[in-house]
Amino acid sequence: MKNIVVNLDLEPRHKQKLEAAAPGCVFTYAPGRTLTKELVQQAQILIGFPPAKWIEASPRLELLQLYSAGADAYIQPGILAPETRLTNATGAYGKAVSEHAFACTLMLMKKLHRYRDSQLQHAWRDAGPVTTLSGATVLVVGLGDIGLSYARLVKAMGARVIGVKRRAGACPEGVDELCLTSDLDRVLPEADVIFSILPGTADTRYFYTRERFAAMKPTAVFINCGRGTAVETQVLADALRDGQIAAAAVDVTEIEPLPADSPLWDLENLLITPHVAGNFHLPDILERVVDIAAANLDAYLNGKPLQNVVDFATGYKK
Amino acid sequence: MKNIVVNLDLEPRHKQKLEAAAPGCVFTYAPGRTLTKELVQQAQILIGFPPAKWIEASPRLELLQLYSAGADAYIQPGILAPETRLTNATGAYGKAVSEHAFACTLMLMKKLHRYRDSQLQHAWRDAGPVTTLSGATVLVVGLGDIGLSYARLVKAMGARVIGVKRRAGACPEGVDELCLTSDLDRVLPEADVIFSILPGTADTRYFYTRERFAAMKPTAVFINCGRGTAVETQVLADALRDGQIAAAAVDVTEIEPLPADSPLWDLENLLITPHVAGNFHLPDILERVVDIAAANLDAYLNGKPLQNVVDFATGYKK
Repeated sequence: MKNIVVNLDLEPRHKQKLEAAAPGCVFTYAPGRTLTKELVQQAQILIGFPPAKWIEASPRLELLQLYSAGADAYIQPGILAPETRLTNATGAYGKAVSEHAFACTLMLMKKLHRYRDSQLQHAWRDAGPVTTLSGATVLVVGLGDIGLSYARLVKAMGARVIGVKRRAGACPEGVDELCLTSDLDRVLPEADVIFSILPGTADTRYFYTRERFAAMKPTAVFINCGRGTAVETQVLADALRDGQIAAAAVDVTEIEPLPADSPLWDLENLLITPHVAGNFHLPDILERVVDIAAANLDAYLNGKPLQNVVDFATGYKK
Repeated sequence: MKNIVVNLDLEPRHKQKLEAAAPGCVFTYAPGRTLTKELVQQAQILIGFPPAKWIEASPRLELLQLYSAGADAYIQPGILAPETRLTNATGAYGKAVSEHAFACTLMLMKKLHRYRDSQLQHAWRDAGPVTTLSGATVLVVGLGDIGLSYARLVKAMGARVIGVKRRAGACPEGVDELCLTSDLDRVLPEADVIFSILPGTADTRYFYTRERFAAMKPTAVFINCGRGTAVETQVLADALRDGQIAAAAVDVTEIEPLPADSPLWDLENLLITPHVAGNFHLPDILERVVDIAAANLDAYLNGKPLQNVVDFATGYKK
C-alpha cells in the first residue's frame, strides 16, 4: 500500500485507469500548482513534474514517473536518492512536438512569419522566393520518438533525411542515412533544415557552437524543440543577425521564460514559441501519459520491468 | 512564321527551349512591366499574363498561353476575339500553391500566428490547445492540380479528405470521398479544414455565403488560395470576428492589393499573404511554365491538339 501523489489535471476516467493499476494504494491528486513540497516529501510514488529542489533526495520516494520526456532537472546529482527509479513519458509527445516543429519548418520556408509582420503593418508586400522540403536535405539531431516522427513528416513531403545519433545502430525506417554525432560537422554544410531535439545533458550544453552555425548553409533553417541550453543565446542571435542561417524557430531558450530584454525577441528571422510544443495542447498527450504511468504503476508494484527508464548519462530513455 | 511575344523573365536556356519549339518564328521578349499595349496588339502568339484590356479582342492574336493557372480576366466577353485560343499553365503551380496552403493550415492549427504576435510584444505567453490533421476531416473545394496536391499533403498527416467538384466522376487517388458542389452544404458541418481553390468565374463569385460560414464548425479553419471573389470581404470579417470559424488564411482577397483600411488586416485569427503562393517563388514553377508553353507552341504550329485549353464555362482547363 503505497502513497501515490499525482501532479496531473485528470478526468475521472484517467483516475480510474491509474487506480486500477495500483489496487489498495492511496492516491492524492495535486494538479498544477496545488502540488506542495510536503506532498512531494510524503510520496512513495510521484507522477508529475515537481520542482526538482522539492525532492531533496527524499528517501521515501521510490519511483518518479515524469509526465515529460525531458528529465534533465532530475538527473543532476543530489536530486534523487540512489534507490529512486526515474521514468519519463517518452512516446507521449512524438505527434504533438513533431507536428509543431514541422509547422514551424514550413512557416519559415514559406516566409509566413514575414507575411504576418507585413500584415500587422497593413502592407501587401511580396517577400520573394521561398523554399520547399521537396528534394531538401533535413538533419534530425536526436532520434527519439519525436525525431523519428518529424522525420516521417518531412519525408512525406519529399525530403532526404539524415538522422544524427550518439551511437551506431540500424538505420530506422523513415531515415535515409544515419550519422554519428561525432560526424555531425561533415553533414552540417549539406543541410537545408536542421531539427534539434536533443535532451538537456552536460554533453548537449552549447552543442551548436559559433563554428557549427558558420558551417551551415546561409539558406538553412534551424528548429530547436529540445532544450534551450543546446544553443547559447548570443550565438543564436549572432548567427541569425549575420545571416549565417536564413531563419530559425525555437520552442525552447537558454533561459525560460525568455527575459523581456532578450536580443532574441526582435529578430525578424526568428520565430519564438514559449515551450508549448508538447504542453498537453493536443488531447492525446494526456491519454498517452496516463497509459504510460498506469503501465509503470502496475510494473513497479508487481516487480516487472519498468518502461521508459531514464538513462542518467544521455537523458533519454535507456 | 509567327510573331511571338513572351512576357516572362527568362534565362537563355528557357529561350532556347521556346525557340526550338517554334523554328523560324520571331520572338520578342518583354518581361514584367516592359510589356506594352503595342506589343500585345502585334502578337500572333502571346505567352504571359497581359492586362486583359490591352488585348481589345485583337484579331491578330491566335493563341494566348497564360503563365497563370487562373484565367478569369480573359474569359470575360469582349476580351479575346472568337478565334483566339486560350491555354493556361495548370500543372505548374500544384506544388508551390499546395505547399503554401498546407503551411498556412498548420500555422493556424498550431496557433503560430498568435505566437508571432506575442513575440512582437516580447510576451512568453501560452496560447492554449492546438489541433492536428491526424484524424481531421479536410474539405478540398476545387479538385484541379493544386487541390489534389494539397489533398496528398494533408492525407500524409492522417487527414480524411473530402474532395468537392462540380461534376460527378471517379474519386481521384488521395481523396477519400467525393462530393458534388451541389452537396457541399451536407459536408460543411463535418469539416475541420476547408481549403478553397476555386477559379474566378460567375459561379464561384461569393460562393462562401454567410449561411455557409454559419454552417461550419466553430473550430474550423478556412484557407483560400483560389480567387478572392469567392468570399465577400465583410462576410469573411464577420465570420472571423463572430467566431463562426476559428481562423482563416487567405492568399487572395476580393480586392487586390488589399486596401490599407480593409477590416481584414487587424483580425488576429486571419493570416493574409499577398497573392504570392504561386508567384514564381519556387524555381520549378518557371521550368514547368516554359515546358507547357514550348509544348503548346509546337502543338499549335503543327496543328496538333493543345494542352491546358481553358474552358470558358468553368475557368479550369477542359
